[in-house]
Order: sequence, then structure tokens, then C-alpha cells
Amino acid sequence: MRTINVEIITIGDEILIGQIVDTNSAWMGVELNKAGFRIAQITSVHDDANHIVNALNDALKRADVVLFTGGIGPTKDDITKHTLTEYFDTKLVFDEKVLRDIEELLKNRQRAMNELTRSQAMVPENCTVIQNPVGTAPITWFDKNEKIVVSMPGVPYEMKTAMTTEIIPRLKARFKTPAIVHRNVLVTGYPESALAIKIADWENALPADIHIAYLPNYGIVKLRLSGISDDGLSMDFAIKHQIEGLKEILGKAIVYEDDWPLEKIAGYWLTETNQSIATAESCTGGNIAHKITSVAGSSTYFKGSVIAYSNDIKTRILGVSEELISTHGAVSREVVEAMATGAQNLLKTDYAIATSGIAGPDGGTSKKPVGTIWISVAYKGGTYSKLFNFGKLREQNIERSTQAAFLMLLEQIKLINRDL
Amino acid sequence: MRTINVEIITIGDEILIGQIVDTNSAWMGVELNKAGFRIAQITSVHDDANHIVNALNDALKRADVVLFTGGIGPTKDDITKHTLTEYFDTKLVFDEKVLRDIEELLKNRQRAMNELTRSQAMVPENCTVIQNPVGTAPITWFDKNEKIVVSMPGVPYEMKTAMTTEIIPRLKARFKTPAIVHRNVLVTGYPESALAIKIADWENALPADIHIAYLPNYGIVKLRLSGISDDGLSMDFAIKHQIEGLKEILGKAIVYEDDWPLEKIAGYWLTETNQSIATAESCTGGNIAHKITSVAGSSTYFKGSVIAYSNDIKTRILGVSEELISTHGAVSREVVEAMATGAQNLLKTDYAIATSGIAGPDGGTSKKPVGTIWISVAYKGGTYSKLFNFGKLREQNIERSTQAAFLMLLEQIKLINRDL
Repeated sequence: MRTINVEIITIGDEILIGQIVDTNSAWMGVELNKAGFRIAQITSVHDDANHIVNALNDALKRADVVLFTGGIGPTKDDITKHTLTEYFDTKLVFDEKVLRDIEELLKNRQRAMNELTRSQAMVPENCTVIQNPVGTAPITWFDKNEKIVVSMPGVPYEMKTAMTTEIIPRLKARFKTPAIVHRNVLVTGYPESALAIKIADWENALPADIHIAYLPNYGIVKLRLSGISDDGLSMDFAIKHQIEGLKEILGKAIVYEDDWPLEKIAGYWLTETNQSIATAESCTGGNIAHKITSVAGSSTYFKGSVIAYSNDIKTRILGVSEELISTHGAVSREVVEAMATGAQNLLKTDYAIATSGIAGPDGGTSKKPVGTIWISVAYKGGTYSKLFNFGKLREQNIERSTQAAFLMLLEQIKLINRDL
Repeated sequence: MRTINVEIITIGDEILIGQIVDTNSAWMGVELNKAGFRIAQITSVHDDANHIVNALNDALKRADVVLFTGGIGPTKDDITKHTLTEYFDTKLVFDEKVLRDIEELLKNRQRAMNELTRSQAMVPENCTVIQNPVGTAPITWFDKNEKIVVSMPGVPYEMKTAMTTEIIPRLKARFKTPAIVHRNVLVTGYPESALAIKIADWENALPADIHIAYLPNYGIVKLRLSGISDDGLSMDFAIKHQIEGLKEILGKAIVYEDDWPLEKIAGYWLTETNQSIATAESCTGGNIAHKITSVAGSSTYFKGSVIAYSNDIKTRILGVSEELISTHGAVSREVVEAMATGAQNLLKTDYAIATSGIAGPDGGTSKKPVGTIWISVAYKGGTYSKLFNFGKLREQNIERSTQAAFLMLLEQIKLINRDL
């Protein structure tokens, strides 16, 4: 089967001036890959007719399908609909059915119709109009010269709903696609270059149709094996076979055999072992709890957290003694361990993660500069604590502390539950 | 002055298959705009020599500067350095100075040199090599036919450091740029189309060199006014003048006159009024606390939080009576208000935000379906509470509840402190 190439073009000045981060394209990439479509390129362009047309012409040279997101709101700065109408040499016509869909949606949201919203029922004549079930801007699907061009909303929720319920099913009906298989292995304990040297012989012996990529992140390297094949099952089997070889080389350095976020792995292991967790966070300010609770089903193992930004709360709620804080300082092994066991006792859990550090930009001293962070994991029987320094950037200190805390937790869960 | 166009090309299969979200480009867009450079296009391409070369050729037709990020790690899947060496018809040579920089960096990180890391001292002969102060991959700067092409790391921290300390200062020295001015106004209470109708006359009377864009987000619309001018001060003055006109039309619907995240506005107002805040979170799971503490300096007004995922913690720590929970259910006005006042009393703050809802995907009932969320803001003298339904997606329920909570908090702070 031939590879079907899809290009994504995101439209909007707000992307190019950096006012928003384009999170749509990554989501679309994952879902389209699952359906067997290869993403050939992602391009972000201005709300400008010439720019949109040039990008479309370039994309059509390379791809079978071009998916536009954005620029279809009712206000004047959004010009995608007019541009595509002209490009496909057609005209805008009033669509009674689209108007009824919009009326229904507004009624459910208890919002009034106005002239601008009504204008969204004007659609290009020679295309398939697809109802947007969760917004007022209709989706347009052009099928010309064996190529598909689709224009859909940029609002993530609307785009995701349209892709899942309409666009991907229609693309799958229109094209035969091979299977695109990705498998990931999360490795700890090796910098990227040291890992590459360690597994060089294995990598050199990989079959030509299996590709490898290294994706380093703080404290872990993701190794991705990918292949395209008409026979998805046998490609998946071939990749799994290679991963078995990798396991023989790397052993316990492999944390997990899937590209799951660490909080999802932790959640899975806690569920499997019927254990619970809490957090006591100072410098991470709730980010660890936020990550834990972003996982569906986390209420079965996550009990709660105390975010203790002030020392008073560390003392009154978590039971850390004032003396301990005044002797060692809030950012110390002693205090972070007392926070962890305090949360474990208060919230009655098997594990508790605690963090205490100086996220910055202020608050550093010569002995404890910005970036100094203590992390402790309390388990039944003790605490496991480490000191880190993650540098001067507040955002990075919060993110890396969170990642490090999950890695410590995973290590500890695996030590206690050896059959995981 | 002529507009200097910059294109960003991000390299890496991981972007196109959706394994990572490209957050670099947005950050670069903001910083380059501040320095007077216009981003003409952002393109994401595969780790593939032909693809990189084609994208570079296309970009050079449109832009004065092309900035590559990514694909310069030491492993085999990273090919940017080899591709650019061939493209610029040069060869790789060993650079003693680069090796010494790498050795110094490894020494500081207590890591050993290996052959792969050493290979990063091989650099293209006819380019300017710029030291990467926080990583082992050097930055390369090509200046040919009046165009600049730069290749830098994709790791966000390394890219940001390189851009701030080296690339932007060098680009500013190389090109004269006009000022690019953006000002934003955050508006609540109007859907996008209703807002556009409300301000239509004002919008139609805008000078031709000031552009407007609408950026709807849950509960707010950002209105952005932009202009490019050799005289940045007078453009800024002209835009401010237009915003004065907008204020006459929209009055209190304008929340804030800058594109700050809501948590930063809240932090600024709390600091200005010398007031403090805490949170008691159930369905948002710490995300509100995480947002509050992402703001530098938040320790002056944020005391802490109780994340109460289990009813037991709502009762034991926040002091919500068991009877209240059994009578009304955990997701109810009564319980969320008791959580808010409970946190306010426990953590001794002026304000407290509480959330209780069903984030999903499980846990919904016919009376309280997934997406049902109560939010309360406790202030000195009472509580302000609202019921929402944000639909079926867990991630969206958490995000929208967080946004709604900050909007309610801002409304309440402004009601109490009328001179803000």
C-alpha cells in the first residue's frame, strides 16, 4: 500500500506572534498516525489570503490531504472561508441546514442569534459541508483532482470533536492506508550519548524497515522504534522482538515499555498494587497533585494534598516541628522528610511525595541558591530523599522537580513491589 | 525601515508524529517580535535531508533569516549538521575551542566524555560557531548571500539561553528593524460575535496601520491591536489612544489591559491590596494552586492549599460536616462553600477558591452528569458561588474550571477593591 501523506496548515497570526502555543497539531499527528496516515509537514501561516494560497499550493505538491485549522470564526480577521471559496473557484451560498444546526446549538447554550453568527451559514457551493457539533463554524471538505482539502475550527475542543467523529472516519473510507507502528521504551540512568554507545551494536543490527529515535527529557531518554507496513501485526511483532533484545542489554534501566507520562505509569502501578498516595508540596505548588489528577481514575489511589507555601502551614497542618524548621531551614532533608511523613499520616496513604526548594527568581542565598530543591518519597517503612539543583528558571525548577519526584516514586514502588 | 522576515523551521519526527508539542516556536515568536522581527512562517519537518533542504530553499525565498531548532543531538537520527554542511558546500572540521567548551560543561556536570559527545566538536568549516553555554551541541551561524541561517538545539532551555544571550543580540546588530507593537485587552461577558457587533463602528474607524484580532478563550475574548512602525513610541501611543475609545464602549467588561494570564492579574491585584489567598480543590486537583504558584513572587500572597479528593479529607482537614456531604452530596453549593470557608479559616487568608465537581470520564449520574462543577470564592463577609457544566472531557473540565475560578476571583477582588 502506498503511504498517504497528510499536511497540517494552522492559520492565525496569534500562532506566529507566539500568543498561543499550537497544541492541535501534535494531537492530530497522534490520531492520524493511529489511522495509518503519515504527517508530511506542519506549516503555520498568517491570516493572509496569499500566504494561505501559497502554503496550500506547496502542500498539494507533496500531500494527498491538506487539513487546515483555524481562521474560520465570524469576525473580519478570519478569512479562510473566503480564501478557499476563491481558490476553488466557487461562490458562497446560503445553507438552510447549516443555519438550523447553528440555531439548535445557540438554543442549547441559551445564546441569541446575531448577524455575524447567521453569516456562518454562508458556505462554499462546491464542497461537502460537515456539521460542527460543538460550535457555530461549519467544516468544509473539498475533493478535487484526487486530493482532499478540509477546513476546520482552530478551537481545540471543536477540532478534536470534528476529527474524531467526522474527518478521520471519512479519510479512512476514502483512502487505503498501511499501519504505522510506534513503540517507545523509557530509559533512566543514561545520558543520551552514553545510551547510544551502550546499544550501538543492537542499533546497527536493526532491520532496515525499523527506525529508531532518541528523545531525551530530564532524567529519562525515550527510545522510539517505528515502522510502516501493510501488515501492522507483523510489524508490531518485529518491533516487540527488537525490544526484547534491548531489555537484555538495558535490564532495569528500562522504566516502562510505553510512551506514557510518568504520572500515568505511577497511577497504573498504584492501582495494580492497591496502594494510595498523597503529596505535600512547597516549591512545586500543586503541580505534582495536578499531574496525578490529570489521569482518569486517579481518585481510586490519590487521596489529597497539602500545598504548604508558608512555614506556618507546614507546622500546623503537616505537623513539621517549628524547631526542625528553625534548625535546618525549610529547604532541608529533615524538613522535606517530615513533610512527607506528615502527609502520609494525615492523609492515611501508603506513599507521600514532598518537595521543598527555592523555585526562584528570588529567595536564594549563597548556601542555598535558587534551584536548590529537596524531594522526599515516604513509603511504609521509611523515606527516600534526594537533593537537586535545577538552575535559575522558575518554570524549569517546577517542571523538573515534578519529573524527578515521579521518577523517585516509580523507583520506590518498583523496589517494594518486585513483580511489577 | 523594511520589515525583516524570520522563518522558524523545527526539525524532528517527534513533532510530526505528535510525541511532543512544539512550545519553542511560540516563545521565539514573542521574543523576536519584541526585537522587531516579523515571523513569516513556522514549518515543522522530518529528520530527513531532502525535506530539510526543500524547506530551507522555500524559506529563503521569503525570509531574511531562517532559524532551525532541533536535530543536532549526537545520535544517528539527528542529521541537521551534516545536511547544512552539504547544503553550504563545506566540510566538517575539528574545533579545539568547541571541545574545550564541552569538556568544561561535562566537568561541571560530573559526566564523562565519550566518543559521541566528542564528535560534537566537529563543526562546518565556513560558519560562525557559537558556544552553547548549557549543552554539548554547538550553535552554527551561516551568513551567505545577505541571508542568515542558524541551527540551534531543540531542547527548550538550551534554545532559550542561546536565543537570549547570542542569537537575538547578533540579529539586532546585523539588521535594522522597525518596532512591532502589540497591545491586548481582555474582555468578559461577550461571545466573540456579539463583541464584534458591539464594537463594529469603533473597529471600522481604526487607522489602516493598526490591525485587530479576536482571540476567544473560555469566558474571555482577547482583543489584540497590532502595528509596525519605525517610531515605536508613536505607534504605541496611537494604539493606546484606540484602547481609550474601546474603554468608553466596553466599560467594566474590560478585565485587564494586557495579555497577562488571569493568575498573574490576580497576583498583581492581591499584592497591590495586600491580601492573601488559599485554595481547596477537589475536581481541579491542584491545578489552581499550580497556576497561582507559577507566578514569580506568589509566596507573598499565596499561603497554601488543601487538595481534598476524598470526602474524609474534606471533613477532617477542611471541617466540612459529614452531614452536609451526605445531605447534599460532595458536588453541591453547600459543600463547595463549606470547603471555601474551611480553607479560608484553616489557612488564615482573605480569599479562598474551592472547586467540587465531576471531571470524568466516570462518576457522573443522571442528576449530576460528568462536567457538573461547583466553584466558590470565599471573601471576608461571604461566598460567591456558581454552577457550571463544561462537558465530558476530563482535561477540558479541569482547564475550564480553573479559568472560571480565576474569573470569579478577579470579579470579586474588583468588587471589594473598587479603585483597582
